[in-house]
Amino acid sequence: MLTSTKIVIFYWSLVSGVLSSVHFEQQIKKFDPTWESLDSRPLPEWYDRDKFGIFIHWGVFSVPAHGEWFWYNWKVNESPNAIKYMKNNYKPNFSYQDFARDFTAELFNATEWAFLFQQSGAKYVVLTSKHHEGYTMWPSKYSFSWNSVDVGPHKNIVGELATAIRNYTNLKFGLYHSLYEWFNLLYLEDKKNNFTTKYFVDFKTGAELYELVEDYKPEVIWSDGEWETEDDYWKAREFLSWLYNSSPVKDTVVVNDRWGSNTLCKHGGFLTCADRFNPGKLQNRKWENAMTIDQNSWGYRKNANLNEYFTSEELIKILAMTVSFGGNLLLNVGPTAEGKIPPIYQERLLDMGKWLSKNGEAIYETIPWNTCQNDTLTPEVWFTMKNNDSTLYAIFSNWPQSNKIFLECVKSLRSSAKIQLLDYYADLKWTSVNGSTEIELPDKALIELKWAWTLKITDYK
Amino acid sequence: MLTSTKIVIFYWSLVSGVLSSVHFEQQIKKFDPTWESLDSRPLPEWYDRDKFGIFIHWGVFSVPAHGEWFWYNWKVNESPNAIKYMKNNYKPNFSYQDFARDFTAELFNATEWAFLFQQSGAKYVVLTSKHHEGYTMWPSKYSFSWNSVDVGPHKNIVGELATAIRNYTNLKFGLYHSLYEWFNLLYLEDKKNNFTTKYFVDFKTGAELYELVEDYKPEVIWSDGEWETEDDYWKAREFLSWLYNSSPVKDTVVVNDRWGSNTLCKHGGFLTCADRFNPGKLQNRKWENAMTIDQNSWGYRKNANLNEYFTSEELIKILAMTVSFGGNLLLNVGPTAEGKIPPIYQERLLDMGKWLSKNGEAIYETIPWNTCQNDTLTPEVWFTMKNNDSTLYAIFSNWPQSNKIFLECVKSLRSSAKIQLLDYYADLKWTSVNGSTEIELPDKALIELKWAWTLKITDYK
Amino acid sequence: MLTSTKIVIFYWSLVSGVLSSVHFEQQIKKFDPTWESLDSRPLPEWYDRDKFGIFIHWGVFSVPAHGEWFWYNWKVNESPNAIKYMKNNYKPNFSYQDFARDFTAELFNATEWAFLFQQSGAKYVVLTSKHHEGYTMWPSKYSFSWNSVDVGPHKNIVGELATAIRNYTNLKFGLYHSLYEWFNLLYLEDKKNNFTTKYFVDFKTGAELYELVEDYKPEVIWSDGEWETEDDYWKAREFLSWLYNSSPVKDTVVVNDRWGSNTLCKHGGFLTCADRFNPGKLQNRKWENAMTIDQNSWGYRKNANLNEYFTSEELIKILAMTVSFGGNLLLNVGPTAEGKIPPIYQERLLDMGKWLSKNGEAIYETIPWNTCQNDTLTPEVWFTMKNNDSTLYAIFSNWPQSNKIFLECVKSLRSSAKIQLLDYYADLKWTSVNGSTEIELPDKALIELKWAWTLKITDYK
Amino acid sequence: MLTSTKIVIFYWSLVSGVLSSVHFEQQIKKFDPTWESLDSRPLPEWYDRDKFGIFIHWGVFSVPAHGEWFWYNWKVNESPNAIKYMKNNYKPNFSYQDFARDFTAELFNATEWAFLFQQSGAKYVVLTSKHHEGYTMWPSKYSFSWNSVDVGPHKNIVGELATAIRNYTNLKFGLYHSLYEWFNLLYLEDKKNNFTTKYFVDFKTGAELYELVEDYKPEVIWSDGEWETEDDYWKAREFLSWLYNSSPVKDTVVVNDRWGSNTLCKHGGFLTCADRFNPGKLQNRKWENAMTIDQNSWGYRKNANLNEYFTSEELIKILAMTVSFGGNLLLNVGPTAEGKIPPIYQERLLDMGKWLSKNGEAIYETIPWNTCQNDTLTPEVWFTMKNNDSTLYAIFSNWPQSNKIFLECVKSLRSSAKIQLLDYYADLKWTSVNGSTEIELPDKALIELKWAWTLKITDYK
Repeated sequence: MLTSTKIVIFYWSLVSGVLSSVHFEQQIKKFDPTWESLDSRPLPEWYDRDKFGIFIHWGVFSVPAHGEWFWYNWKVNESPNAIKYMKNNYKPNFSYQDFARDFTAELFNATEWAFLFQQSGAKYVVLTSKHHEGYTMWPSKYSFSWNSVDVGPHKNIVGELATAIRNYTNLKFGLYHSLYEWFNLLYLEDKKNNFTTKYFVDFKTGAELYELVEDYKPEVIWSDGEWETEDDYWKAREFLSWLYNSSPVKDTVVVNDRWGSNTLCKHGGFLTCADRFNPGKLQNRKWENAMTIDQNSWGYRKNANLNEYFTSEELIKILAMTVSFGGNLLLNVGPTAEGKIPPIYQERLLDMGKWLSKNGEAIYETIPWNTCQNDTLTPEVWFTMKNNDSTLYAIFSNWPQSNKIFLECVKSLRSSAKIQLLDYYADLKWTSVNGSTEIELPDKALIELKWAWTLKITDYK
Repeated sequence: MLTSTKIVIFYWSLVSGVLSSVHFEQQIKKFDPTWESLDSRPLPEWYDRDKFGIFIHWGVFSVPAHGEWFWYNWKVNESPNAIKYMKNNYKPNFSYQDFARDFTAELFNATEWAFLFQQSGAKYVVLTSKHHEGYTMWPSKYSFSWNSVDVGPHKNIVGELATAIRNYTNLKFGLYHSLYEWFNLLYLEDKKNNFTTKYFVDFKTGAELYELVEDYKPEVIWSDGEWETEDDYWKAREFLSWLYNSSPVKDTVVVNDRWGSNTLCKHGGFLTCADRFNPGKLQNRKWENAMTIDQNSWGYRKNANLNEYFTSEELIKILAMTVSFGGNLLLNVGPTAEGKIPPIYQERLLDMGKWLSKNGEAIYETIPWNTCQNDTLTPEVWFTMKNNDSTLYAIFSNWPQSNKIFLECVKSLRSSAKIQLLDYYADLKWTSVNGSTEIELPDKALIELKWAWTLKITDYK
Repeated sequence: MLTSTKIVIFYWSLVSGVLSSVHFEQQIKKFDPTWESLDSRPLPEWYDRDKFGIFIHWGVFSVPAHGEWFWYNWKVNESPNAIKYMKNNYKPNFSYQDFARDFTAELFNATEWAFLFQQSGAKYVVLTSKHHEGYTMWPSKYSFSWNSVDVGPHKNIVGELATAIRNYTNLKFGLYHSLYEWFNLLYLEDKKNNFTTKYFVDFKTGAELYELVEDYKPEVIWSDGEWETEDDYWKAREFLSWLYNSSPVKDTVVVNDRWGSNTLCKHGGFLTCADRFNPGKLQNRKWENAMTIDQNSWGYRKNANLNEYFTSEELIKILAMTVSFGGNLLLNVGPTAEGKIPPIYQERLLDMGKWLSKNGEAIYETIPWNTCQNDTLTPEVWFTMKNNDSTLYAIFSNWPQSNKIFLECVKSLRSSAKIQLLDYYADLKWTSVNGSTEIELPDKALIELKWAWTLKITDYK
Repeated sequence: MLTSTKIVIFYWSLVSGVLSSVHFEQQIKKFDPTWESLDSRPLPEWYDRDKFGIFIHWGVFSVPAHGEWFWYNWKVNESPNAIKYMKNNYKPNFSYQDFARDFTAELFNATEWAFLFQQSGAKYVVLTSKHHEGYTMWPSKYSFSWNSVDVGPHKNIVGELATAIRNYTNLKFGLYHSLYEWFNLLYLEDKKNNFTTKYFVDFKTGAELYELVEDYKPEVIWSDGEWETEDDYWKAREFLSWLYNSSPVKDTVVVNDRWGSNTLCKHGGFLTCADRFNPGKLQNRKWENAMTIDQNSWGYRKNANLNEYFTSEELIKILAMTVSFGGNLLLNVGPTAEGKIPPIYQERLLDMGKWLSKNGEAIYETIPWNTCQNDTLTPEVWFTMKNNDSTLYAIFSNWPQSNKIFLECVKSLRSSAKIQLLDYYADLKWTSVNGSTEIELPDKALIELKWAWTLKITDYK
């Protein structure tokens, strides 16, 4: 224990002080370490344009493969399932850290992953660089012998994936990073001290954030594990002002809103608010829906059954809905401990890609339609539009048996308006009915596409 | 890498400053963080009196069991044997850290060890709390997931042994600690910076020294791994002044001389100078001979053959010689990864114990004899004496075929002097021959003891 | 080696001799151990009626998970991929048998499997009781320490699955069994002796066939590994005559045609002829199409990608085509070493089940239509019919853009004939065009079903 | 189960029948398969001359390393220690067979072993080719995947050791072989059938005995595991008559007496009667004392302490006593799972070798002295003599404090008799006292040898 007579004290100098002396000539600092200042930074534009990213949860938790919270569920929550699994399949006193050796990543092929993600239609990728378990997926100086080079894969996972994504795709590369670590004794010490000490931040989690940015230049920092205490403890504002002012990604990086118990859904870059966040209505600040393909887990679960995975149809609906409400979709996959993205995940991603290859113009570089996001009468219709305000998209996932679709929100359509079905050659007939619009779809036998369809309404206003 | 634009800076406040503010009333500091002051501290008396201790080298290196330097030999020295061993017996890219899971300690029984050490006649025990591999044998806050509770034994080895030694024996408990760690990236970073940064000391090796002392109160700190840079980098003087002034063991702790490349054989407590140090003559400062039973290794070697172990007779001679020159003997054992002290080691220790149970008075609480340490004429005779200056001991390991032993150094013996053979009932006859002394031994058939014998000369001056 | 001077000789007494003495009263033997006699046995009716079964390839090969021939590919074919995989991921000299300990089956849940198979619409299940590796999935007396109870799962896989299938479903339970074992020294000895000795048959593969039948009463025996020598060596005719005359499954069991290098596609029960056998036309003897979902493997492959799995649509077409030609489809799944049937397989099976729940009457208990099996003009249309000769089914997988389908084979339809689309409520309009039949399909927007559709033509002749 | 309706029957043809047809010209059979005939075979002379052999217990049991009966103690005896060990250190359902993969033999060096055994003074070596666990230490055709080539060492242990012993020493090579196997289902089946069936003998244990002899030509067959039923079941007489008449070792092989519950201490070659057999008096048939260095185990025990090993002095006494009573000593060592003979064993063997290098003439090629085997008055004196009847040896392990030893048994010594102490240059003085003999030993300070000494009395009669 760090006793009260402990005479060793560590701290960071103020970021600003050091910076001003070292880089005085370089620039006028734009962003102070206050939320007022930090929140004033405009979100780099690429993020809103891109709409769709892939989230990857991979780590030692992929070995027991009962979800990424396994360690906590087992030791703190004392989940009967976790306890039973360990009791039945491991020797007594087998520790979570003992799993690391079985994290072989023997099938991990970063290039193959990169191609898969590109085929999914996603525009950015976010990898767990470190989850709450504290194991770093790069050879961190601050995590000796508890990282992916020292034990398990013997590979720099962050480095290999960053390189592959950049070499073989035009996707952006981002990193998830958990501020806290459930069982790090330094963290627990600070917590016991009511966070008046910051050993853990200075020695570990804070230090490695700088290391990550300098070494891998991520364009997304997806922070997490912030909730037990405020941003002050995490030195989050200092970090962000450095990130925005001086880091190698200062002009392009986007961050989320998980920087302290007082920041979620309030401060930072885009808002995440909650896992699988679905606000149900248009938001006036950019947000992201971090969503899983496995309905019940972010990390790979080896005992998951088919009915626990969302179908491609459901995921496409979620994408349309998310974009209609102004969000981005960050869709999560859980690779196996051996480094394979299982075929069921591949199928979902490739289906997304197939759909987007036909319907992508209704998603990418769109903005929400202020008037309606989903139709007020016909269910499962979502709207998006192009910035220029003259093209509207209506994505629908139920093909009407009548072959006619009624859009109550689309009112007073100009006579010059043209309505098309994406991937279908001919213009559609439409009529105004009580000021709203009824559209005649083509015979469904002519349509190849599955899952959902997009009406493109040109010159609508 | 920590680049030049790195804005994070860590440091320790001065030990003295903090202390004086916190514990002003407590005491006047005796020892400044200078060698002049630190060297002025008298060595606690127990250490010179006790003469004989047990060294234990145990750690992850006990798993490959090719000597405690295995990792370095394999990766840096590229020893053909180490490379071949790994190639033949492990999968490619198996890392050193991967060994940790096999460090089962399943047979480790601290109480059994304690009894064995007590039976050996030793008076103190020194365990490797952390060797150059960096793995801590206690749950250090500064070594998350690379310690004996988190991976491998799932036991607090330091804690269990400290408790057993204290509960079941009257031996003193000490700890070996390596300042440096071959492959810790923080250390390598500091080294690359010519030791102008001290990330490694502040985050890891320095911090854990305080932790060790506070949590386990060792009465020996056997420092090592100091040689690549000076004490200043290691903050050794600060540590020692705290240790001597304020630590829970300030009155009883002894330390060695390995605190920087400028300290060996010069500063600190007792001198070690070199592994298996044998100065060959009387020293005027207290020193220690750290010696192995396995002639070629400190850590257990699973491929060692009998001829590589010193015999009991050799070890008893080394003990006698060491004590005659003013040293202590710290005799090393290497337990297996499973936690067993192999029978061949047990045999050596128990033989030492048998011999000391008869001859201990010539070892414990003795001082060197200024006149001679070994006889100038008869080989393999070593002298010790009691502090009161009237009892002299001559330990000899060759029983003369003539049954007469001539001690050239023992001159002008008073006629009142009495000579006995320890463990033999009758006084021995002696005569002066040219001023020296010839002693008639008893018929050897009457003597049970093996290995070496002790002549006790009372009232010799 | 069994040398030429070997004086130990083993053999089985003739089956018939023993039987007649033991069970003389029981019955008049119907089947002699000749192919003439054995082939005269009518195939039990259930088999032709049931049409669709599940094949399960599971064994130690599921651990390396590079296909069920991995051992042979690695050691005999010296496949570069297999060699590289072993070299990169295992220590030198790691043997195939060493894999067995990692065959954990920790997630194996026979009941869950049973329900899945039932939901797939299959009517029987065939499990690999022993593949060419020789490892038995039951505790065979003839395979001490190389079976699923002794090493690996510690479970009687055959027994558990048999029980679950029988308790929870109305499916029939069958067993695959490989006659030969690649590396069994007894087999290699016999082979070296040009199969003049039968040590291997008597000690191992023959004996365990009887054991399997007596202990688990399989209703399918799917023999394999027969091709290196004739049925005489395997004592196959003796076994079959016992199986048909006296075994506990004598009345219900069906077998295939793999009983010797001279039997494939000629003798036995149903014909398999080749793996993934597709004769392309109507057969006059009952046959089976043993087909895989993973296009390239029977055993689970952990590195398989989505594009290597057949889609549900492809599999449904294969089923229709197979049944139209008079075959049964035995569709293979490859569970993981942990005992899970991966979600991608679940998806395929459940899709089959969904389709069959609507279209099953065109599959189960049907017979081929002598006139046509697939339409002579419209591609991807397959015909089946009910035994009573008045109901005809046409299964088609391409929905025509015109919503009209022309069946050239369906000629001279009576005016009383009625045509329905299964799962659609109304009768369809049809017209005779040049003697053939053109059918008007409903609007596709009204149809929920995917993959393929069935026209039911009642009273067609 | 093999049910009563089982129609498969196996048996060996009579050995004689086959032999006579194959090798009619070769020889007249000397030995019938009756004990009368078999017992009439003289023991090959080398065996009695050699006196001292090394027994090696090595197998899968060396992995848990709790004694070679571990499996049985755990599963049948339900020994609390065994159960606790497994519960604490292995996952549930870990099976004994699962241990085999950890039998690495990675340090096994047959040449090193051979040299060690030669240095011990032993003249023959007996290795466990298969213990009750059934695992064969050679690639037996009858033990597929449960042998040392298929799983674990991936080495032909029997073959490698046989070659090394023959290439590098003049020791003879022998094999231990357990007839029964605790858990072999074929054996248990036969046992349930009251040994009226012999499946296990025909398929496994009998067959492999022939294989062993033909492939490795052992000069000792040390049978064991015979006690549950009579020799008839084991087909032991048939085997021995083949072994003595026709095998490649027919002229030199020696066997023991463990061939059925009715043979121990009665039939076969030399008698073993019991483990660690010490008859306490002269026997009139050649016998062997199979003795362990670890007092409590044949197989290596990783938790054994020093006090559980016999000392070199005790073992030398046992050798002298055994030889004086007409026995041979077969001294057992237990190598580790990694293939090392631990140093404590090495020490004992090398001490034996040192002692024999000086005193061997009193052991090798001697016969018991009919008059006395140990002295009737002076304890711990054992007699042996040379065949020519004129040289007598008295081995004593207590050096008398008086330097005089009184041998009551040595009566009426001729005046020409000469008495020497082996390894001492001069003849000793002796006197007759009441017809017995008192001998004056040299001053003990002149004697280097330890443990025991030998008086050689020449021309004593």
